[in-house]
Amino acid sequence: MNFKLKTSREMLEMKKDENFSRWFDELLLNAEIMDNRYPIKGFAVYKGWGARIVRKITEMLESKLEETGHAPMLFPVAISEDSFKKEAKHIKGFTAEVFWITHAGKRKLKKRMLLRPTSETAMYPMFAQWIRSHADLPLKIFQSVCVYRYETKATRPLFRMREFLWNEAHTAHRDWEEAEKQVREAVEIYDEVFKSLGLSYYILKRPDFDKFAGAAYSIAFDAWNPDGRVNQIGTVHNLGENFSKAFGITYEDIEGRQRYVVQTCYGFGISRTLAAIISQHGDDHGLVLLPEIAPIQVVIVPIPYKGSEDEIKKYAKKVFERLNAAGFRVYLDETDKTPGEKYYYWEMFGVPVRVEVGPRDVRDKHVTICERVNLKRISVAFEEAVQVIKETFEKIKRDLKDKSLSTLKDMTVDASDVESLRRAIKSKKIARVCWCGSIECAEKITEESGGEIRGQRIDIEEKPEHPCIICEREAEKVVYVARAY
Amino acid sequence: MNFKLKTSREMLEMKKDENFSRWFDELLLNAEIMDNRYPIKGFAVYKGWGARIVRKITEMLESKLEETGHAPMLFPVAISEDSFKKEAKHIKGFTAEVFWITHAGKRKLKKRMLLRPTSETAMYPMFAQWIRSHADLPLKIFQSVCVYRYETKATRPLFRMREFLWNEAHTAHRDWEEAEKQVREAVEIYDEVFKSLGLSYYILKRPDFDKFAGAAYSIAFDAWNPDGRVNQIGTVHNLGENFSKAFGITYEDIEGRQRYVVQTCYGFGISRTLAAIISQHGDDHGLVLLPEIAPIQVVIVPIPYKGSEDEIKKYAKKVFERLNAAGFRVYLDETDKTPGEKYYYWEMFGVPVRVEVGPRDVRDKHVTICERVNLKRISVAFEEAVQVIKETFEKIKRDLKDKSLSTLKDMTVDASDVESLRRAIKSKKIARVCWCGSIECAEKITEESGGEIRGQRIDIEEKPEHPCIICEREAEKVVYVARAY
Repeated sequence: MNFKLKTSREMLEMKKDENFSRWFDELLLNAEIMDNRYPIKGFAVYKGWGARIVRKITEMLESKLEETGHAPMLFPVAISEDSFKKEAKHIKGFTAEVFWITHAGKRKLKKRMLLRPTSETAMYPMFAQWIRSHADLPLKIFQSVCVYRYETKATRPLFRMREFLWNEAHTAHRDWEEAEKQVREAVEIYDEVFKSLGLSYYILKRPDFDKFAGAAYSIAFDAWNPDGRVNQIGTVHNLGENFSKAFGITYEDIEGRQRYVVQTCYGFGISRTLAAIISQHGDDHGLVLLPEIAPIQVVIVPIPYKGSEDEIKKYAKKVFERLNAAGFRVYLDETDKTPGEKYYYWEMFGVPVRVEVGPRDVRDKHVTICERVNLKRISVAFEEAVQVIKETFEKIKRDLKDKSLSTLKDMTVDASDVESLRRAIKSKKIARVCWCGSIECAEKITEESGGEIRGQRIDIEEKPEHPCIICEREAEKVVYVARAY
Repeated sequence: MNFKLKTSREMLEMKKDENFSRWFDELLLNAEIMDNRYPIKGFAVYKGWGARIVRKITEMLESKLEETGHAPMLFPVAISEDSFKKEAKHIKGFTAEVFWITHAGKRKLKKRMLLRPTSETAMYPMFAQWIRSHADLPLKIFQSVCVYRYETKATRPLFRMREFLWNEAHTAHRDWEEAEKQVREAVEIYDEVFKSLGLSYYILKRPDFDKFAGAAYSIAFDAWNPDGRVNQIGTVHNLGENFSKAFGITYEDIEGRQRYVVQTCYGFGISRTLAAIISQHGDDHGLVLLPEIAPIQVVIVPIPYKGSEDEIKKYAKKVFERLNAAGFRVYLDETDKTPGEKYYYWEMFGVPVRVEVGPRDVRDKHVTICERVNLKRISVAFEEAVQVIKETFEKIKRDLKDKSLSTLKDMTVDASDVESLRRAIKSKKIARVCWCGSIECAEKITEESGGEIRGQRIDIEEKPEHPCIICEREAEKVVYVARAY
């Protein structure tokens, strides 16, 4: 990789815990993730480092989707108003936030079109043409694209944009049971990818009032965030026959009867997953990247010493060649900054492993390996470097995952009365409460605490041990309450 | 790869040479490249096979761009009207064909925005913020995205869409000389990628009246097409200081003076490159894909024989495992279609190599290898299969490249008078003519022949040996004339 270094740079000034929001914004700009100064609100530029990480995340997900029989496709960004208006609940859910294309050149278009806020209404008119018989099922497809939503809430880079990157998969099945199986597969795929990114989150069935517009039910992945506002990084929906009836997607079953397909769809927030990686793993030095998604996995920093500059340079090259041949994405930093400046610089970019090469290393045929999570150094023989770095990668993955999971646990508190709920939300926690299931009590919860009911866990069964936190009638569910992006 | 086969399918009905246009359209649909029945004109769906090929082409190009120091980025699709209007010639060139976003939800936007027709005006306001000193230069970036142009001419799938896929690179430099060097690098990169796709084309400097809106000059790659209409698959522009003056992109040079950067940009038409691959390499059986971009490189077809079905099945699996372990993208077709149906099917999809496994192969521990270009079969020992397939891949690449180049040569004819020019264009040729350089004669050429001046070659120097084909004054240039997409 040919990588261009800036010659001077202000380092991060903010501590993550003191002011998460400013720390995050500064990091996005300084680590070349995203530049939010684009002249249209809610639209921003992914810069080199960010675009490369995005590509890695996308590849991880797409390869899992292909392995499980999903075909990649690419649908237009523009949706006709006719298609958009076919499913009543869907249009109701999205109509306030779609961007309309009304003119081309100097002409007014006869039929205006909208930018996809999500692609059901772009895809399903085609599904109706593609699906004829049971042999065409299941149909499983995906695309990685930008979608467009006119958010009226305050926008936040990566977390809430008017243009954001996601991967959406859409499937069609013979019956409800097959669709249910698909929902489980989708949850597993997302869980695997998020886990391999070291993230921690709750997998929640959303309350009915908060499901996707047009779905039978929705499941969501809510990742923790240092500011206490959970970050929905993925959702999985069983659409039932809602869309197939609206779009006339039918098939002939084995007995020759025409039946509606049962559909599912699921969205993986690529921008938001990047936000979660930065927020959960980052520290006061900057980004911390897992080796899988780090554009540079190992940076080599030579420590020049008067009289032995040439020797060190030569040895550093040798180290570079060895690590490069081993398949690592490795970069030898030969700029004229001081070693200390280089350390700070690459720590900010989250490079998982730094290899320092000084006079003593040359003499002993050693290298000094420093890992990004704990910034601990060890000295190892040149011959062992590749193996030790591989092990360090595994350790980094374990450490990040463990740290993130323990934070999620620490952030989660039980609240059995309104006062403790209020306190929990105010102190940036996720509250676990018992709820009767009524919309009135759900609204009251938000009114009293500022948090919202995010749903009940699907990975474990949690039985209410208290009455409803609001009305004190018998509780139906244990739900998680938090502020959210 | 998990790949879903359709159980029945109409095969191609058209011959490529009899009716190219229908052959092309049928092939797009049947080989699951693109479905053009999307309800908005000029917008279409890339299906699984097409999307996978697109991804391979994109990866080939992007890795070359990264190797040469270009950073991947991702800019918004929406451009503010203010930015768009900054460069006078640029706006004049594009204003008739931009899509306007004017509303969001039920509100009229205070400032309307346009969908990028190309990204100069999205990127350069950011360049002005990013570039401060000579140390920030050169800046070299790229993105692979869809762009939007309201074409008023008839749209054609892949060739001329209102939404199409491309990769655009943009660079900024200290001076004209550096920019010139960059133009040469860009031409080399594109030439390498197109060549490794086996394509043939002319690299032409466009006449001044046909350069990119806002450029100092433009170079284009015009690929031949069976219908005689050349297909512009890539362009490279030196922008001079036109945009840096309009957007105020300056840097401080080594002496401390403020100077305007000199810029270049270049676009690689991904949709059009796919069109060129289909058109140049395809035949009456369907697609012919180079191994580099084939989603499946080798398909194994078992030939069952009464009594030895199990044996053959087992042997086919063994062959699969060997080829898979060798790193090929291989698919074992175990559907219950007949071998003949499978042959036709996979030939249509352009899979470069088919391995047939019949009773004699099992007995002799052989496999039968059939290559897609010439459909010739050879029998080789199991142990040699991997090596022979590798060699067959190389042969396919050579054959396709040679065949395409010889077609380009055959298609090109010299025309020294209007009558022979007219005849050449009518018979779907590319004409080589001498031209005085005047716009009047250029217009006359189009009027008389229907072809347009595409430009003069930059790879070789061609000196006019005749007077201008129209006015008979001294000719300035040898130019190529053709109809175009």
